[in-house]
Amino acid sequence: MRLAELSTRSGVSTTTIKYYLREGLLHPGRRITATQAEYDEGHLRRLRLVRALIQVGRIPVNSAREVLAALQDEDLDRNKRLGTAVWALPHGPAPDADDPATEAARRSADELLDRLGWSYGRKSCEATTAPAYEMLVTAIATLSRLGYPCAVRDLEPYARAMERIAVTDLDLVERYETPDEQVEAAVALTVLYEPVLLSLRRLAEAEESRRRFGGK
Amino acid sequence: MRLAELSTRSGVSTTTIKYYLREGLLHPGRRITATQAEYDEGHLRRLRLVRALIQVGRIPVNSAREVLAALQDEDLDRNKRLGTAVWALPHGPAPDADDPATEAARRSADELLDRLGWSYGRKSCEATTAPAYEMLVTAIATLSRLGYPCAVRDLEPYARAMERIAVTDLDLVERYETPDEQVEAAVALTVLYEPVLLSLRRLAEAEESRRRFGGK
Repeated sequence: MRLAELSTRSGVSTTTIKYYLREGLLHPGRRITATQAEYDEGHLRRLRLVRALIQVGRIPVNSAREVLAALQDEDLDRNKRLGTAVWALPHGPAPDADDPATEAARRSADELLDRLGWSYGRKSCEATTAPAYEMLVTAIATLSRLGYPCAVRDLEPYARAMERIAVTDLDLVERYETPDEQVEAAVALTVLYEPVLLSLRRLAEAEESRRRFGGK
Repeated sequence: MRLAELSTRSGVSTTTIKYYLREGLLHPGRRITATQAEYDEGHLRRLRLVRALIQVGRIPVNSAREVLAALQDEDLDRNKRLGTAVWALPHGPAPDADDPATEAARRSADELLDRLGWSYGRKSCEATTAPAYEMLVTAIATLSRLGYPCAVRDLEPYARAMERIAVTDLDLVERYETPDEQVEAAVALTVLYEPVLLSLRRLAEAEESRRRFGGK
């Protein structure tokens, strides 16, 4: 298809598509004349992912480029491509290394992951810690700094719930046919389901609050 | 305690405390001389919550003021105070009313909530829909607009997981003694546990991905 059709089918303006092409977020089409190129379903899929990352995930263009580079790295197996792509997603502020709460939070996070039997992304097992692990440390440190300390046994039910969520996430991903589509879907769904989860949690809390604290 | 001690114990600078007082985010202390006031544990607790909302939740000062006003409204019961406070939290962009995907998403959200037996925050039961419900509609519409349509049965496992999370959330809240402390903790923990959940999900996904897609 030509640029105009790619624009119509993706809902992305031609100006924005050209910007994504210039920024390397979208791979070039197959040149057919000096001024025209041909695009395919792969471009359409990639555009969907770019919009998920940039428009919904509010991910900076540079980070999006890293995520996409990881997805395209054919030297890596599916698991590694996925891990590298999620690794490149933004994860909020890093833990404050000077704060004593950070060290305590790191011990809590490690104890939690030990209990769960999760080994991914920790210093003891990998060359460097995963951003998601650092994000967890920051969150635990913040809770304790603000006077809402959380014990490891308080965190465990959250982690167990997320284990079930991850199974659901990967079941959705495996509905896509090719490994390429699967890693793209995995990254997009990681980002796009975050507001789904957070809104459902608030609605569930309201139900549970009514159950416990009454009112009609 | 005096301002200086409130600052030390809360870790919030006196300048920032004075700013919160001026903005009505913190209730005035008990005046003891023309220039000095006495603060108590209630101020300390309130400061913790304000920091959770503003520094961690990145909630604008105006929204934070609304959240706090709801918490203090003694005419409401505990459930309503909590509901009103969570209602005032920011929930991201509203659904795009002109987009046909929004109407379809609203039907999906309604069908999902019917299945779950949740009645909170929907147009059929309340004068106006809850922001968390609108946030859910936006998220579902975005998924479908970007070409990742989700069926109601795909959303249900996420909602069931959030039901369990809400039980854990409210168990934590009920450890606090007074209704005042409970509603404050509920709002703070709603905000502060969001990064905990999202980071644990990414770590859980990495574990599940390794289990399914190999690597060592």
